[in-house]
Amino acid sequence: MKSILLIVLDGLGDRPNPVLNNRTALQAAFRPNMNYLAAGGQTGQMHPVKPGIRSGSDTSHLSLLGYDPEKFYTGRGPFEAMGLGLDVRGGDIAFRANFGTRKENGEISDRRAGRISNGTELLAKDLSMNIDGVDFFVKAGVEHRAAMVMRGDNLSDMVTDSDPHEVGMKVHEISATGKSAEFTAEVLNKYLKEARKILDAHELNLERKKHGEPPANELLLRGAGLAPKLPLFREKTDLKGACISGIPMVSGICRLAGMDLINVIGATGKLDSNFSAKFAAAFEALGTYDFLIMNIKATDVAGHDGDAIAKKNAIERIDRAMEGIQNHLDDSVICITGDHSTPCVTKDHSGDPVPIVFNTSGIRKDSVKLFDEISCSGGAHNIMSGDVQRILLQLSDRAAKYGA
Amino acid sequence: MKSILLIVLDGLGDRPNPVLNNRTALQAAFRPNMNYLAAGGQTGQMHPVKPGIRSGSDTSHLSLLGYDPEKFYTGRGPFEAMGLGLDVRGGDIAFRANFGTRKENGEISDRRAGRISNGTELLAKDLSMNIDGVDFFVKAGVEHRAAMVMRGDNLSDMVTDSDPHEVGMKVHEISATGKSAEFTAEVLNKYLKEARKILDAHELNLERKKHGEPPANELLLRGAGLAPKLPLFREKTDLKGACISGIPMVSGICRLAGMDLINVIGATGKLDSNFSAKFAAAFEALGTYDFLIMNIKATDVAGHDGDAIAKKNAIERIDRAMEGIQNHLDDSVICITGDHSTPCVTKDHSGDPVPIVFNTSGIRKDSVKLFDEISCSGGAHNIMSGDVQRILLQLSDRAAKYGA
Repeated sequence: MKSILLIVLDGLGDRPNPVLNNRTALQAAFRPNMNYLAAGGQTGQMHPVKPGIRSGSDTSHLSLLGYDPEKFYTGRGPFEAMGLGLDVRGGDIAFRANFGTRKENGEISDRRAGRISNGTELLAKDLSMNIDGVDFFVKAGVEHRAAMVMRGDNLSDMVTDSDPHEVGMKVHEISATGKSAEFTAEVLNKYLKEARKILDAHELNLERKKHGEPPANELLLRGAGLAPKLPLFREKTDLKGACISGIPMVSGICRLAGMDLINVIGATGKLDSNFSAKFAAAFEALGTYDFLIMNIKATDVAGHDGDAIAKKNAIERIDRAMEGIQNHLDDSVICITGDHSTPCVTKDHSGDPVPIVFNTSGIRKDSVKLFDEISCSGGAHNIMSGDVQRILLQLSDRAAKYGA
Repeated sequence: MKSILLIVLDGLGDRPNPVLNNRTALQAAFRPNMNYLAAGGQTGQMHPVKPGIRSGSDTSHLSLLGYDPEKFYTGRGPFEAMGLGLDVRGGDIAFRANFGTRKENGEISDRRAGRISNGTELLAKDLSMNIDGVDFFVKAGVEHRAAMVMRGDNLSDMVTDSDPHEVGMKVHEISATGKSAEFTAEVLNKYLKEARKILDAHELNLERKKHGEPPANELLLRGAGLAPKLPLFREKTDLKGACISGIPMVSGICRLAGMDLINVIGATGKLDSNFSAKFAAAFEALGTYDFLIMNIKATDVAGHDGDAIAKKNAIERIDRAMEGIQNHLDDSVICITGDHSTPCVTKDHSGDPVPIVFNTSGIRKDSVKLFDEISCSGGAHNIMSGDVQRILLQLSDRAAKYGA
């Protein structure tokens, strides 16, 4: 039976760019391997989630894996925590967090602890603990930002923020907004009391005080969110799946789905990522796994930077790195697409559709010869991200019959 | 931020017509401006509501504005009342009505009062009144036809018809079919009693009797319908919206959505409408409003007339009237489409999809060069009317991000 390789070039789609003679980065790139797959395969345009939806990476990856975000997307909290590299599991409660400065009377004098830029990972490490059977995990982000995840029995996300959201206010006691959340609120307040002791006495904060800098002595919690319990990918599709990704959010979603994570040295989730190593790992893993999803973040990074040349160059390097992909068409179904568009002109996600190509030996091909937004919009497919899993199953002759 | 101009050419879609050498009216028309927008923009075909649905103007306009008709369309009554120019508001109860002839014993001898052709607007005016806190509004239509709307607290559409639907039967007492409708039925019967007095004594009817014509002395009510309470367009989309329409039904829907109505002198909703005045008003209003919907009815009128030449001519006049639309692409997203097809060969709405074009500066274009049903079917889009709002929001970079 054929394996499946789904290659997601993050933020791939773009709009015409003056820097590239009003072509998109993909149109402008030298991409012989992508074009080879398009010329011999089925192309089309894919709408992330739905036409016109300006999708995030979280919602669109869920959808690409066959999990309807309207059903399984529980808000940003758990996915941002994943994005920071926290191991988030179904049923966990995740918070967005700030390191802030608390005065002795409990008032918050700075919600960002002077935009602290160093050492928060040390604070985070010391704030990970177990209280009353509940595990707390904290991970630092950029500057004052962090995420906190709690794991245990009988937890609920129906709790208020401790973050007062305003300077000069006292830290809020956390309270339950739903009746099954009393225990969660209670253990959270216990945890924060403990956290305050640790932060007040922390060497880093004593140093900061010595230098006249506001200490990061309060973990301000907001936006409690319940991590969704995804039906296991294996049980849903009967596929043994794995993920190759340089970014923790995509790995996190795949882990929620029960997939294996393949760690590739040099996969950074940035422009300097080792694409060749990722493809080499993917081609090898095709022998072991039925389904592989590979995310390459570089295209999205260049899009957010508004750097069309960098995006074009990244696409060219990705294309070179996939050299030899032709040799896997007999044994695999290959699909390349994006999770959303990140036009270099807008520097953020847009709701423009993305090109998609499917190829495998014996596939019915369409008349499109090039892999880019414009060429593929005339291809055989005009689909939503939620259709991709079904099409991959069917092209690999694995789809169950619907009816008799 | 870019404004949005959605131009709906009513009943635009057509089928090949022998009179036009088996082209559609749109294919046959000289339409340089529409073609300009197509050549530089994104085209496609749009299915009103869903593929194969033979949509009315009411259901498809609701859908084009982002209101799912499966959720918000409550039946023809309220929309036909709007179509006659009645001011229908969410929560109103609307009836279709006939002026009929009632004998002294209460039997209906003619459900159409001899297809009365003159003066019913005078009767309608005298039948508008307040009873027990409920306002009643009547508007005359073509021949014996009319609509009645009641507005007040605690009203329900769970009531039976007063129209016996058969000649020789007595007028029916209206009764409640749902338990919360007792008051509605009671006040309706009071109202009809009052109406009978007024109609029996009305000068017009005394005249008709004198000339041996059947008097229009009974307002026969049928098909009670509750006008939907639409979520306000402004709150739903954060867009300040307005409507330019020569036909009351489209204005009525937009008013239900809380949009402003821009009145254009010479906008008749007919073949003789002043298209130039409408476009001039639209271009000016783009400075004031975030969103404009403009309906041009002439194409539908010609379709219902089965007059392909008239439809072609109307399209040519519309195209001329939009001269200068190119100058608005930097500041606006322009979309032209139809609300449904009205093929001149069938003289009624059909379920054929309609062409659609989106254009704005910086848009990713497809390879289609002409704006017509056949060319656009090869374009980038294959969408439903319910997708249009989302796409317009995204092309004007106003879409909220779904996820992170």
